[in-house]
Amino acid sequence: MGRLTVLGLGQLGGSFALAARASGRTTEIVGFGRSEASLADARRLGLADRTCTDPRDAVRGARTILIATPLRSVSALVASIRDALEPGALVMDVGSVKGTAVRDIEGPLFGSASVCAVSFVACHPLAGTERFGPAAASADLYRGRRCIVCPSARTPAEALARAKEAWTAVGAEVILMPAALHDETMAAVSHLPHVAAYALARVLGDLSAEVTASALALPTTSLRDTTRIAASSPAMWRDIFLENREALLPLVARLEEAVGLLRTAISAGDAAALEAVLEAARTTRDRLFPR
Amino acid sequence: MGRLTVLGLGQLGGSFALAARASGRTTEIVGFGRSEASLADARRLGLADRTCTDPRDAVRGARTILIATPLRSVSALVASIRDALEPGALVMDVGSVKGTAVRDIEGPLFGSASVCAVSFVACHPLAGTERFGPAAASADLYRGRRCIVCPSARTPAEALARAKEAWTAVGAEVILMPAALHDETMAAVSHLPHVAAYALARVLGDLSAEVTASALALPTTSLRDTTRIAASSPAMWRDIFLENREALLPLVARLEEAVGLLRTAISAGDAAALEAVLEAARTTRDRLFPR
Repeated sequence: MGRLTVLGLGQLGGSFALAARASGRTTEIVGFGRSEASLADARRLGLADRTCTDPRDAVRGARTILIATPLRSVSALVASIRDALEPGALVMDVGSVKGTAVRDIEGPLFGSASVCAVSFVACHPLAGTERFGPAAASADLYRGRRCIVCPSARTPAEALARAKEAWTAVGAEVILMPAALHDETMAAVSHLPHVAAYALARVLGDLSAEVTASALALPTTSLRDTTRIAASSPAMWRDIFLENREALLPLVARLEEAVGLLRTAISAGDAAALEAVLEAARTTRDRLFPR
Repeated sequence: MGRLTVLGLGQLGGSFALAARASGRTTEIVGFGRSEASLADARRLGLADRTCTDPRDAVRGARTILIATPLRSVSALVASIRDALEPGALVMDVGSVKGTAVRDIEGPLFGSASVCAVSFVACHPLAGTERFGPAAASADLYRGRRCIVCPSARTPAEALARAKEAWTAVGAEVILMPAALHDETMAAVSHLPHVAAYALARVLGDLSAEVTASALALPTTSLRDTTRIAASSPAMWRDIFLENREALLPLVARLEEAVGLLRTAISAGDAAALEAVLEAARTTRDRLFPR
């Protein structure tokens, strides 16, 4: 990877830095962040050899650049660094939405004649927990996890090969997928479950003090499992929901309809209709997760 | 417990029978079921010393009776056994809804002069998995789990003491709670999460073959966790939803509203409103499950 610059030293960026250093494939690791306090944490945790609050300074001389800042900050960040990238630099990201990554990163990079020697590969490592920030970084975060790589028609084969090597070096298994299919799949398997979990958690805020106290006294595995991911970063999920809204919105509308359908069947006391809905849902679930 | 009759030898009834026998507190265990095939399974698995398909025969001479049949079958079952119970018999149930248990079991039992010496204690052991049927029974199912016991104004102290002893003997820890509070709490911590999981699983049935195939190729912890309980028995959950509809319906309506609120914020691209909803939901979730 040569000199590696990680833009954003949260859980994903920080873990990549730790694993890249451990792999012995980097010569120096430079970290960028907006907040000096957060960068001080990152240095204390050994996530980078040096850090800067100016992204242009951070990318100068870097051969490999990983963008791991919040999704909605990426466009502005790319605009500010594009003229500071050196020829031959490989830019990768870690975002959970890939159609917009190609639009917001690859477009501006390739649109500039001065950076034609720079390449971009859209990446989405399936790693990360509901924890976040530099302290949540771990050298093992990517070990044994998949990294979805979404090459576009403009991705040079050499850049794709370097991206694969980099993710393999940090312990991940690379799988290739078109960006549009990635976004539709993630909307179904990850983004929609997060919508459901946040919606469920919201309802719990309306419970009476007596019911809340009684709930706190009980073991509640069902509730814990179904709302676990509502403990995730609101800012991160705000961005994912908005960036992937095209694929996500039809599914959210169908979720709303499905809840409405159950409400109607329960309200009407329609045992046969209710059982049919539950049976069909279980069959679908069993198909995705065979017992 | 003396002679124990278990009505319904599924996971809950069968596990009670196995654990009761292991405790050494029973003299004989009689099992009742509607289907001879299922009873043959139960005998083969050692869940009962003998079995009958007539519930009146099953309860004759029993000192302790556990009703563990599907919720909606309980009323008719109680009507058929009430005149066959012997004086001093203790009847318990295991249903997930307790207001209706008191109404459907205690009412008919106490309403009959001929069975005034019989007592009923409403019980809800917080145990059981998404598996069901005799083969899912285990002597350890109740070990270390809570059993919520909901005495009413008509529950004799001696019957309550015997119920506590029985659940303690099978390994559970007894906690007392009024039936109404039990039902409201369970609607929030268990029944509503099941509605959400079934609704989410339903939406997955609409995915294209391409997206489904792509989802099957990926690790999908979020989806697995949020839909795990949609693998539960449709017939059992149909009954729970209908029996507890009074407490459950307002929560399902609020869940529908919460999904709609998220859909509107995502659709409008309203980042501030969306983040506020997610942040509030996460705060509520953290209050119930501190990190």
